[in-house]
Amino acid sequence: MQFAPECVPCLLNRVLYEVQLVAPERGEEAMAESLHVLSSDFPKGMNSAKLATLVHARAYAISGSKDPYADLKRRSDQAAELVFPQAERMVEEADDRLEMAVRVAIAGNVLDFGIDIGFERPEELVRGFDKLVGEGLRINDLAQTRKLIRKGGTVLYLLDNCGESVLDRLLIREIKRLGPKVIGVVKGEPILTDVTMEDALRAHLDECLDEILSTDSFAVGIDATKVGRRLRKELEDADLIVSKGMANFESLSDERYRPVLFLLRGKCEPVSRLIGARRGDNVARLWA
Amino acid sequence: MQFAPECVPCLLNRVLYEVQLVAPERGEEAMAESLHVLSSDFPKGMNSAKLATLVHARAYAISGSKDPYADLKRRSDQAAELVFPQAERMVEEADDRLEMAVRVAIAGNVLDFGIDIGFERPEELVRGFDKLVGEGLRINDLAQTRKLIRKGGTVLYLLDNCGESVLDRLLIREIKRLGPKVIGVVKGEPILTDVTMEDALRAHLDECLDEILSTDSFAVGIDATKVGRRLRKELEDADLIVSKGMANFESLSDERYRPVLFLLRGKCEPVSRLIGARRGDNVARLWA
Repeated sequence: MQFAPECVPCLLNRVLYEVQLVAPERGEEAMAESLHVLSSDFPKGMNSAKLATLVHARAYAISGSKDPYADLKRRSDQAAELVFPQAERMVEEADDRLEMAVRVAIAGNVLDFGIDIGFERPEELVRGFDKLVGEGLRINDLAQTRKLIRKGGTVLYLLDNCGESVLDRLLIREIKRLGPKVIGVVKGEPILTDVTMEDALRAHLDECLDEILSTDSFAVGIDATKVGRRLRKELEDADLIVSKGMANFESLSDERYRPVLFLLRGKCEPVSRLIGARRGDNVARLWA
Repeated sequence: MQFAPECVPCLLNRVLYEVQLVAPERGEEAMAESLHVLSSDFPKGMNSAKLATLVHARAYAISGSKDPYADLKRRSDQAAELVFPQAERMVEEADDRLEMAVRVAIAGNVLDFGIDIGFERPEELVRGFDKLVGEGLRINDLAQTRKLIRKGGTVLYLLDNCGESVLDRLLIREIKRLGPKVIGVVKGEPILTDVTMEDALRAHLDECLDEILSTDSFAVGIDATKVGRRLRKELEDADLIVSKGMANFESLSDERYRPVLFLLRGKCEPVSRLIGARRGDNVARLWA
């Protein structure tokens, strides 16, 4: 996705949020430095995730922390574990188990902090879960997706936030029931609340995934120019890529890898517009 | 008030909002230019209102409009006129008329657009008015203020947003009932949704004010270095300055003029912190 003007204040709010989590006294320095990066590197058409990576890299350095969201990530996992049994029952009792597992996995996508439309505290998930799942899908390309899954082969599953990943276990399980093996993809280094290998193991994702690969880099979303040879091959050859969340979408929307099922909650105008939805919508969009 | 890191994304959101009102295709240009201004002129300790003036001046030029908020201003006046009779009754029936008029005047301060905590549409005032007035004052320095007003003399009333100004008429009336003459201060040029002389006349403020003076400049809040000799004298000599809204507070908090009664709704952390309140609070704070 091309960087939109709306991305600038959103990104700066996020930078401020993460620096204040661990080093509130460095907010001004982080802001001045972000402005410097943005005013130097704001060329028309730059990928939004790549520019966000540049800005967050500087903010992390200024914050003095490798993982400013560490505490939020653990709390998100805990909150998601609390609703997991209920989510599991929802899937088991649903007429369409795959569709319900997708709704549950998208509901987990609200575990995103420091943005307008996310939660303020992970614990809000517990109270709001029923309502979130009940919202249903505004865009539902699952009929076509189901055919791709039924072919078997390999599904590459790009994980997004911690907590959300706990609920992803249910969708991964449903995909595997339909045939394919599923390879999870985690971030090479901590970035925002995204799942790293350590986070994936803590959330027992190794118990449902056939394999876990890493992006090997510090990046918002997935920087295809930086992934290792093995992951690149899987991106090219996968029978289906399941991409969770906005950042992975922002990255992959500018890449040629297909088919991709984008599962996300549209939390901003530019992403919602590009994927053909409205802000606040739950989206299961297949780009084939 | 010193420019805080939080001011940057807030200001950029506001710039984007106002440019999109009149020239949506110029959002990217406005953002790039704002980043340029902010990254050049972001010195520690600069007054927040003055930096906002620099950024909005560029944004207005890029938008090609002298008054991007013109339509919103008129709609705000209309919405406020709809609730005016009810507000008037509230004041007349109150045990403490001055306090109720202050609450009403602060309720009008939600008529502020393009920020997180304001309204999206002026018409929301009509539905939300009762609740707004019912919130009461978190900070209430009116006992001491009443003594100042009772001395008579001159009260200088710095107006803020259109619509809000319609409700200000009730407070101006109550102040005058206690003795003083009241001089209103409007903006020299259109800035955000603030009242200009033209707006003041449209809202019949000339019928309750003894006189109306202009700041004579394009500025967020009031730039004391740019006001004419007459207004400067009134700022120095007034028995009380009533300052509506955050921008006037951000300006006057760095000036020596006293006593000032700040009437505002704390719509952001930095202003709320400086005035000793929390975000969302209604504040009647006297700096004497």
